[in-house]
Amino acid sequence: MRAARMYAYKQPLVLEEIETPNISLTQVLVRVGGAGMCRSDVQLIDGYFQDAIKPTFPITPGHEIAGSVEAVGSNVPETAKLAVGDQVVAAAGWGDGICRQCRLGNEQICEHGNWPGFGPPGGYAEFVPVPYRQLIRLEKRMKWEELAPLTDAGVTPYRGIKKLRAAGVLGPDRVMAVFGASGLGSYAVQYAKLLSSGATVVVFARNEEKLTIAKQRGADHAINTRGKSLTDLRDELVKLTGKAKLDAAIDCVGAEETIRTGFGLLATAGVFVSVGLVGTRIDIPLFPFTAGEFTYHGSFWANYADLQEVLALAQKGQIQHSIKPIRFEDINHNLELLRTGDIIGRAVIVFDNAASSSEHKEVRDTVSV
Amino acid sequence: MRAARMYAYKQPLVLEEIETPNISLTQVLVRVGGAGMCRSDVQLIDGYFQDAIKPTFPITPGHEIAGSVEAVGSNVPETAKLAVGDQVVAAAGWGDGICRQCRLGNEQICEHGNWPGFGPPGGYAEFVPVPYRQLIRLEKRMKWEELAPLTDAGVTPYRGIKKLRAAGVLGPDRVMAVFGASGLGSYAVQYAKLLSSGATVVVFARNEEKLTIAKQRGADHAINTRGKSLTDLRDELVKLTGKAKLDAAIDCVGAEETIRTGFGLLATAGVFVSVGLVGTRIDIPLFPFTAGEFTYHGSFWANYADLQEVLALAQKGQIQHSIKPIRFEDINHNLELLRTGDIIGRAVIVFDNAASSSEHKEVRDTVSV
Amino acid sequence: MRAARMYAYKQPLVLEEIETPNISLTQVLVRVGGAGMCRSDVQLIDGYFQDAIKPTFPITPGHEIAGSVEAVGSNVPETAKLAVGDQVVAAAGWGDGICRQCRLGNEQICEHGNWPGFGPPGGYAEFVPVPYRQLIRLEKRMKWEELAPLTDAGVTPYRGIKKLRAAGVLGPDRVMAVFGASGLGSYAVQYAKLLSSGATVVVFARNEEKLTIAKQRGADHAINTRGKSLTDLRDELVKLTGKAKLDAAIDCVGAEETIRTGFGLLATAGVFVSVGLVGTRIDIPLFPFTAGEFTYHGSFWANYADLQEVLALAQKGQIQHSIKPIRFEDINHNLELLRTGDIIGRAVIVFDNAASSSEHKEVRDTVSV
Amino acid sequence: MRAARMYAYKQPLVLEEIETPNISLTQVLVRVGGAGMCRSDVQLIDGYFQDAIKPTFPITPGHEIAGSVEAVGSNVPETAKLAVGDQVVAAAGWGDGICRQCRLGNEQICEHGNWPGFGPPGGYAEFVPVPYRQLIRLEKRMKWEELAPLTDAGVTPYRGIKKLRAAGVLGPDRVMAVFGASGLGSYAVQYAKLLSSGATVVVFARNEEKLTIAKQRGADHAINTRGKSLTDLRDELVKLTGKAKLDAAIDCVGAEETIRTGFGLLATAGVFVSVGLVGTRIDIPLFPFTAGEFTYHGSFWANYADLQEVLALAQKGQIQHSIKPIRFEDINHNLELLRTGDIIGRAVIVFDNAASSSEHKEVRDTVSV
Repeated sequence: MRAARMYAYKQPLVLEEIETPNISLTQVLVRVGGAGMCRSDVQLIDGYFQDAIKPTFPITPGHEIAGSVEAVGSNVPETAKLAVGDQVVAAAGWGDGICRQCRLGNEQICEHGNWPGFGPPGGYAEFVPVPYRQLIRLEKRMKWEELAPLTDAGVTPYRGIKKLRAAGVLGPDRVMAVFGASGLGSYAVQYAKLLSSGATVVVFARNEEKLTIAKQRGADHAINTRGKSLTDLRDELVKLTGKAKLDAAIDCVGAEETIRTGFGLLATAGVFVSVGLVGTRIDIPLFPFTAGEFTYHGSFWANYADLQEVLALAQKGQIQHSIKPIRFEDINHNLELLRTGDIIGRAVIVFDNAASSSEHKEVRDTVSV
Repeated sequence: MRAARMYAYKQPLVLEEIETPNISLTQVLVRVGGAGMCRSDVQLIDGYFQDAIKPTFPITPGHEIAGSVEAVGSNVPETAKLAVGDQVVAAAGWGDGICRQCRLGNEQICEHGNWPGFGPPGGYAEFVPVPYRQLIRLEKRMKWEELAPLTDAGVTPYRGIKKLRAAGVLGPDRVMAVFGASGLGSYAVQYAKLLSSGATVVVFARNEEKLTIAKQRGADHAINTRGKSLTDLRDELVKLTGKAKLDAAIDCVGAEETIRTGFGLLATAGVFVSVGLVGTRIDIPLFPFTAGEFTYHGSFWANYADLQEVLALAQKGQIQHSIKPIRFEDINHNLELLRTGDIIGRAVIVFDNAASSSEHKEVRDTVSV
Repeated sequence: MRAARMYAYKQPLVLEEIETPNISLTQVLVRVGGAGMCRSDVQLIDGYFQDAIKPTFPITPGHEIAGSVEAVGSNVPETAKLAVGDQVVAAAGWGDGICRQCRLGNEQICEHGNWPGFGPPGGYAEFVPVPYRQLIRLEKRMKWEELAPLTDAGVTPYRGIKKLRAAGVLGPDRVMAVFGASGLGSYAVQYAKLLSSGATVVVFARNEEKLTIAKQRGADHAINTRGKSLTDLRDELVKLTGKAKLDAAIDCVGAEETIRTGFGLLATAGVFVSVGLVGTRIDIPLFPFTAGEFTYHGSFWANYADLQEVLALAQKGQIQHSIKPIRFEDINHNLELLRTGDIIGRAVIVFDNAASSSEHKEVRDTVSV
Repeated sequence: MRAARMYAYKQPLVLEEIETPNISLTQVLVRVGGAGMCRSDVQLIDGYFQDAIKPTFPITPGHEIAGSVEAVGSNVPETAKLAVGDQVVAAAGWGDGICRQCRLGNEQICEHGNWPGFGPPGGYAEFVPVPYRQLIRLEKRMKWEELAPLTDAGVTPYRGIKKLRAAGVLGPDRVMAVFGASGLGSYAVQYAKLLSSGATVVVFARNEEKLTIAKQRGADHAINTRGKSLTDLRDELVKLTGKAKLDAAIDCVGAEETIRTGFGLLATAGVFVSVGLVGTRIDIPLFPFTAGEFTYHGSFWANYADLQEVLALAQKGQIQHSIKPIRFEDINHNLELLRTGDIIGRAVIVFDNAASSSEHKEVRDTVSV
């Protein structure tokens, strides 16, 4: 089978023909239909995770995996209802199954867990083995390129916003911010509307084109932060919403600046969630954090239940996708575009043989932004 | 001023001319614009609350009060921003201000509190004194008859649904039920959509016309319960939603039958909220309640913050109203209709002099259902 | 091996010699050290669960299982750290592993789950097969008869009280009630002290001897309910605590009367949890439930994490046990005592060969109340 | 009356004779019995809050106020049950009463609020006017010097630990850390035991004498952090508790180092609360915060309900105090000791005339550590 593999840090991936992997008794072999390309794939290649993850080369990246069931391990129980040909997605974060977090369903933060594409082979290949418990079967078939990104870009901000909702700071008289309007952000604004019980949603980003898409996706207001001070931003917020402070914010960027800006605009008892990881430090003043009784949540990827919920939204047609389908051959080129931030919409590798086996032969030609 | 007052149980109200009330230093005199007529007004007259509330006759009923500020007590602080002519609504539930519940903002369940129309004079009169802390000023003027019912019928199910949301059982892959499609129910289906993060909303009631309105208000499915067994209802639920159980339910009726049906259809770890009070008993089996780890919340009226949130929705145009404006002279006739359940939409007394002082001279002629 | 099995409803168990069971690849064969005898075993025999559970006879009852690892299935992972000879307990509630509740760790309420002793063979036998994921290994060895009851009587009220704690109604200025002072109740009063952050704990029961033990176990006050009206009880509560209402209550009995009494004494915004199942109905008035914004939780058995926590307390020596060790031969006699409520302390079958293999040869002779 | 007042930043207070203040209609004049001296008084004098608070000089510091009712404003309602001679404490944080936070009872974080001793005159004087809603009357008289510090040092960590409890990370199999063993820390270890449902409590500080007191106050383990690396601390934690990570932590210091250490030791899904304010920045790495799904709460002082709960504990004798009573004349000297950290126990100004009016004439002579 074809696979794009990483043999060293800061090198292009090697596109090569390798053997199709075997599966264990409780795994499923998935024929990859679509594999989303994530900024964290670039970070993996560039060494960002070197301290946290110690992989053995070569690595097949790709953690946003949608595909069809090609073969089912002999110990996969019937109750799992997985049959050859089923359209499936893989919930990333494969834990040990017995620690506290795994028993709560949060396998993505298992301390002994791993993630496809960061250790176990990922979706930059025609086939990938997946533990059966991590697969979710689709009722109604979807386009590969719309489906694959839901497993990370499409579900990570969803989990983050659930934390804001659980914190009790979303509601009709509240102002909620989304920082970032790229991969995660363009989903985040949609969930912000769906989960906030009527809050006013404001998107903050530096790219005017992405801000425009974010507004099309449902943001009530868009603020371009480029070159603006905190005071400028507060003034603009007041002008747009009548309020000077944010009750809740999700940061899909994770730069030091977005974190600082977010907390700088946060209202008393406000809640801020980080999902983005562009930067490396949190550096904010202590007194307003304490005296304002702020709450700050880290939110990492998502668990199986979160993905089920996002798929339920997708199956009801309540998610709009910003997608750029690409060919396997163009992976390295698109990694480069991702590195420089020059992609509008999520790049998704769509395998031709997979696409032709679905009902959606036309996917290659559409760019749904 | 004119007032409709209750001198004894089970008697028509006496419509009479009485003195305009004085206000204390921290009260505001409100010129009533609209006063909603609630089924609990009928229950008050019929003696339902005799054990719980011991009023001194005569009582001026009417706890859904919208009006304009006529006079402001001399100790009302400027920070309250209340000026003559302002359009205001009264948050019901006036507590002692110092008990645990009052200090949490839940004045409506203060054990030493009272409610206008059930002790202190209510809105079935041209003027009513209201403690300044209970008033909420509107930014954009609304029609009296749409505004008044928000203070009870329009906010009571909102608070109940917030309890479902806080319990974590609302989301895109969930099924939520609203029992009842009358006064409270027709608001409840709207909040169910706004607050449930994409849940499938099913309304259960016995009146086909009200069910039709509930679907127009946003319910995904409507089930007429008349003459159906629990098995029938479950079959219909499966047919409509693909699921046999409810994750969450709000009961806007409160009959023994709706409570039993609701719990009979509840899924494992499901949550049920009672706001309706038609019946007098909860009578359900213990084993499924315990073994299914059900949660049952009583929810009473709403607090000031809840009403602020509902008004925020209304000001954004996100609430549709089912209203029947009536004249002061027709109060007793409409109480009778309410007693027999023969009203579609909320009956609201609109005072002619009040209406003429608003921007909405036309209100008397429209029936917005 | 010896086993005590049920062949029909309302008949004594048959004590017989049967084959030692085989285990599947992911099971562990547990040599039973102690098997607690629970009132629900009597209910099983008497047909209480006939509607809910449809077992195939013969059944080996016994869901409170402590023992030692006799054999380990070949697919049990090393990460489970289970070796022959380890002292273990079985967390009851074996789910399908893939439903919503199982993925949250609540296998005990899996709709496709089952419980040892109510379908799969239980602990009234010398050996029992247990799925490896359900076993918890003890660090420090404990007495069999003290260990076994922790898996139900000792953990069920713990989970219930966690629900009270999560509801925010426990704290130093609160009054918490425990209804019942038998099997579950004598544990409940201890957890009430440990988990309530300083609340005043009042135990309500009808047996003076059990009330005395409950006070020794930490209850601040004991109220004998026999023959007393609600008004009597309230007066006694005021005299003892200075307060007339309960902020929180756990009902370890589950009779219609305890439920009615509990809600009759509940304070505004109070929370009541049912774990006991003696009766069959919940029958309480609706208006106070709703107007008082009561919350009512069903709580069923406990999950793996709950049991881990209880074992942590036990290993720290923070739990006192009320135990009556019995011989295998005396099972039917003790079931009869359990049926009539004539046991003080938990009856636990202690197997002689098991006991002799532990460090605690003396267990048979001690009655630790 | 005598008062110690601040006329400029970084100057000793001026001890002088000034007029006894008048009270408004809803205030109570409190004769100060004890006034706690807080490190934040030193910070006030040193200008730490210059950006946040803009007071008009002279200021009478002192926000930990216990005293007796000297006079009651004529509009204070009888329901407040405040009579001349009553022993009372003042809940600090006097809000506008109508904002969102005030309506939730969190007056201490009202954006239009103020705090006695940071604007309105505080307790470094013989008399102080207090709004009646902020006073809590004691049932059983306590020593002035033990009572006063409960209003800040004694309640601030309590609120913080309640946030840990509400986050669900406290329990018998958890490890909880308290950073700091001075004013707040010596209370914090006690609440850690009372509120953590059996967690293992570890105190981290640099002063061996304070660590010893913390262990006497209930800490299970004490770790002296002086000169130790994160790895050293983790090794010591493992040795003492068997675990390498903290499930929960409260930081009563607030230095950059304690924050960094705390997060460096935090377990997956761990929760950290800041109450201390010694430093000015939060500077921690982003990736572990996000990937570990940490939660970080700011917690500021406490509200009325928190103080009621702490007083309930104190009245039950469940709080041990570390106190150093001082004379009014020695204020400046003790401010200097506080600045350098050279006080063991809370310094509390005890007024001689107040003390003589209480039952506790002996207070001046005892040092209860």
